[in-house]
Amino acid sequence: MTEKAKLIAPRLPRGFEDRTPGDIAAVGTMMDKIKAVYERYGFDPVETPLLELTETLGKFLPDTDRPNAGVFSLQDDDEQWMSLRYDLTAPLARYFAENFETLPKPYRSYRQGYVFRNEKPGPGRFRQFMQFDADTVGSASPEADAEMCMMMADVMDALGLQGQYVVRVNNRKVLDGVLATAGVTSDEQKLTVLRAIDKLDKFGTDGVRLLLGAGRKDESGDFTKGAGLTPDQIEPLLDYVASGEPANGVERGSNAHVVGTINTLAGLIGGSDAGMAGVQELATIFGLVQASGFGDRVMLDPSVVRGLEYYTGPVFEIELTFKVQNEKGQDVVFGSVGGGGRYDGLVSRFRREPVPATGFSIGVSRLASALKLTGNLDAAEPVGPVVVLVMDKDQTAGYQAMVSELRKAGIRAEMFLGNTKNFGKQVAYADKRNAPAVIIEGSQEREQGILQVKDLVAGKQAAAEITDNAEWKAARPGQFEIKREDLVSAIQQLLSEQ
Amino acid sequence: MTEKAKLIAPRLPRGFEDRTPGDIAAVGTMMDKIKAVYERYGFDPVETPLLELTETLGKFLPDTDRPNAGVFSLQDDDEQWMSLRYDLTAPLARYFAENFETLPKPYRSYRQGYVFRNEKPGPGRFRQFMQFDADTVGSASPEADAEMCMMMADVMDALGLQGQYVVRVNNRKVLDGVLATAGVTSDEQKLTVLRAIDKLDKFGTDGVRLLLGAGRKDESGDFTKGAGLTPDQIEPLLDYVASGEPANGVERGSNAHVVGTINTLAGLIGGSDAGMAGVQELATIFGLVQASGFGDRVMLDPSVVRGLEYYTGPVFEIELTFKVQNEKGQDVVFGSVGGGGRYDGLVSRFRREPVPATGFSIGVSRLASALKLTGNLDAAEPVGPVVVLVMDKDQTAGYQAMVSELRKAGIRAEMFLGNTKNFGKQVAYADKRNAPAVIIEGSQEREQGILQVKDLVAGKQAAAEITDNAEWKAARPGQFEIKREDLVSAIQQLLSEQ
Repeated sequence: MTEKAKLIAPRLPRGFEDRTPGDIAAVGTMMDKIKAVYERYGFDPVETPLLELTETLGKFLPDTDRPNAGVFSLQDDDEQWMSLRYDLTAPLARYFAENFETLPKPYRSYRQGYVFRNEKPGPGRFRQFMQFDADTVGSASPEADAEMCMMMADVMDALGLQGQYVVRVNNRKVLDGVLATAGVTSDEQKLTVLRAIDKLDKFGTDGVRLLLGAGRKDESGDFTKGAGLTPDQIEPLLDYVASGEPANGVERGSNAHVVGTINTLAGLIGGSDAGMAGVQELATIFGLVQASGFGDRVMLDPSVVRGLEYYTGPVFEIELTFKVQNEKGQDVVFGSVGGGGRYDGLVSRFRREPVPATGFSIGVSRLASALKLTGNLDAAEPVGPVVVLVMDKDQTAGYQAMVSELRKAGIRAEMFLGNTKNFGKQVAYADKRNAPAVIIEGSQEREQGILQVKDLVAGKQAAAEITDNAEWKAARPGQFEIKREDLVSAIQQLLSEQ
Repeated sequence: MTEKAKLIAPRLPRGFEDRTPGDIAAVGTMMDKIKAVYERYGFDPVETPLLELTETLGKFLPDTDRPNAGVFSLQDDDEQWMSLRYDLTAPLARYFAENFETLPKPYRSYRQGYVFRNEKPGPGRFRQFMQFDADTVGSASPEADAEMCMMMADVMDALGLQGQYVVRVNNRKVLDGVLATAGVTSDEQKLTVLRAIDKLDKFGTDGVRLLLGAGRKDESGDFTKGAGLTPDQIEPLLDYVASGEPANGVERGSNAHVVGTINTLAGLIGGSDAGMAGVQELATIFGLVQASGFGDRVMLDPSVVRGLEYYTGPVFEIELTFKVQNEKGQDVVFGSVGGGGRYDGLVSRFRREPVPATGFSIGVSRLASALKLTGNLDAAEPVGPVVVLVMDKDQTAGYQAMVSELRKAGIRAEMFLGNTKNFGKQVAYADKRNAPAVIIEGSQEREQGILQVKDLVAGKQAAAEITDNAEWKAARPGQFEIKREDLVSAIQQLLSEQ
């Protein structure tokens, strides 16, 4: 490489990011806690590759209203198209169908891994991000859905979020029944209605009413066209959306609350068979939820919509209920960190018989942010190694021997490997590495069989107190002498005191 | 989806594979042990995305003699080309250059992750596979290379491979000096010579002599064209290749062995400056290796070549020395599970100043296979959950409550969620899941407040002993009765006894 060669700019494609040691360690700890819950629930890990044949993944991307939504695809040398997976559910469907004969049925599995979206990136929106899913394939029972909801709740508890979340549950079939009763039949109008209901948290009942009717103008004057329903259609829909609220005197999450909501829903679906099936599934789910003591954490909420096209029955969402400030400085609830539902059609793409399935997905980065905000995730950078300084360049074999002794005793340690001319730079390096101590052996120390140890933690504390330079030099805070043969024991003691 | 819709074949692209629970757990344990060594050596984790801009990765693929070698690339919507990373070194070079101002220097990091090769797949050769790397960027010292070699040895020890491996070390500069002295100057001829030397293990000295000369015919009659060197050129090269063998009476790996080899090499490089620099680097490396007690595990071996174009100095390779049978049933050494070297030019592609670097990469799957072969990796499928059978479909809330009690006590448990009509199928499911026990509560048991527990482990042992069907039914091996309220304690006791 000549100096005249054109330099390449070191940068990432838009929407991709590198991860730091603190983030890797913190997310790793979080994932281990989630994994322990999944395993306690009887789920086993499985892992599929990042690339799949495009036709096996299918096109089930959420948020299809965004024009650039899409997958990253490339053509193999045999002309077949392959894509980077956009979620962990489509690959699971392929895996289950491919291994149908040998897998236990129902098949319970969990998976973690990166997924990719070929979309416009934005703040907090990346084109590669991690999901952590659990699914039960081959069970049509609402009991399987109930288990998903309880598992999500236990995951949140395991992460220390007791009392700061709710798992909200609804059923697509009920929603379909209500829409049919209200005379909403075209797919396009249905989509506009679902989007309007999804905005309940943001705009309240009045806002949703506008979005179901002619439309809504926001503070900036922007107008969102509504679904164009008549008041006769709108009011039952609003009744439906509000049906999750407990009646006066009824405790939220109590059995009476659930029974009341289910009765209201049964009235709202008119004669729809699908709607009735959905209500019965919800009754089964909440029977189990109540019997297992999850009533205060898993709630029936008819306003839950969720985006993915492939859901066919119960849908659920983990909502973190504490407040955070948004970009505009307003207090808003933190919101969803994951969710899922029943998708009975996905595996059927590969097999003639119906293969029911249910599962959920956790957005790892978003959940990690929430845990950092609530103090449930220690994202501190790791403690660095003890650094043995290089005072004499021809003595590295001796310094290396010290490092080897420390490492053999299980202590993180290294010899300084950079430019050794400048003593200050070596100490600055140790500081930057968050090193607990440096070891110094010049020719004088070597002759006497001793070492100087500089305790960087004590040194930093002292530095905050001593302001005078001369005083500093006299005191040499945190520095002490040890015998060469006591290296390991002295450092062990120092680390235990720090 | 109608039944008439064309079914999609559930399959993976060629060269990709799914991973089982046993493999995931075993490799996870292995990675944790490797990680602990890297951290003890003062290395910190970093993670880069799977996609990078094609121009930042560059073209440094190993084994460039294979015609289909290549990367998976795709074009972004702004027309820029992106590629799936083909190793973890090229992304590290980009990362270091991009974060040059803020990173500590030298920068010591480790990384694990999948890499992709757009090549023809074959047995044991995948297009997505995992690597686990460690690198020191920003240090030109041979001390940094010595540390890499010792760390590889400590990784092998941590994995239980004491006495079954050797880290072989060479220096590209020495090799270049020897080639120059032998009058091998054209790049093409150089490449043929390196490939010939690389075959020493396989064909022995006589085979290499043929490959350095006119060529070699193998048993099947296939002819490999040689480098076309004259005997005057060949003999010094063979002396060079053999220079790693200890003289009579000298112990392999002793200081005398190292000193002897280094003296021989100094004689073979003629007057070459680069060659002499290489010999001096090796002397420094082995000074440290000997001082730190790694002499029996890290060995100077002039026959080590390694493929990657970007190596500029010391190169190293972890070789597992135990024998395995190859496809033809012959005993061969297991061979390389990783390696690396110094690559001083890679970061310079992004910056005007030189940025020296050294590192190594472990092939995760290959190392895991070696550990399985040597009994150092438990690849057993995980113990399954306790399965609560569904005897009465309208009692699932009660069964679910039992499961919740078990889970709260930290016991892996689940309710059977499949088709409950057939009792035998429920037990078969539990067997397939490797369940330790099933819990049975029919209406009779419910009335009496008891449960039947079927110990599947004891049952399997008994089944091996009892051959008579009637005897089996009378004995009902492994089945016993407990009080409903003793569920958790009884299962805890059972699991501890198993």
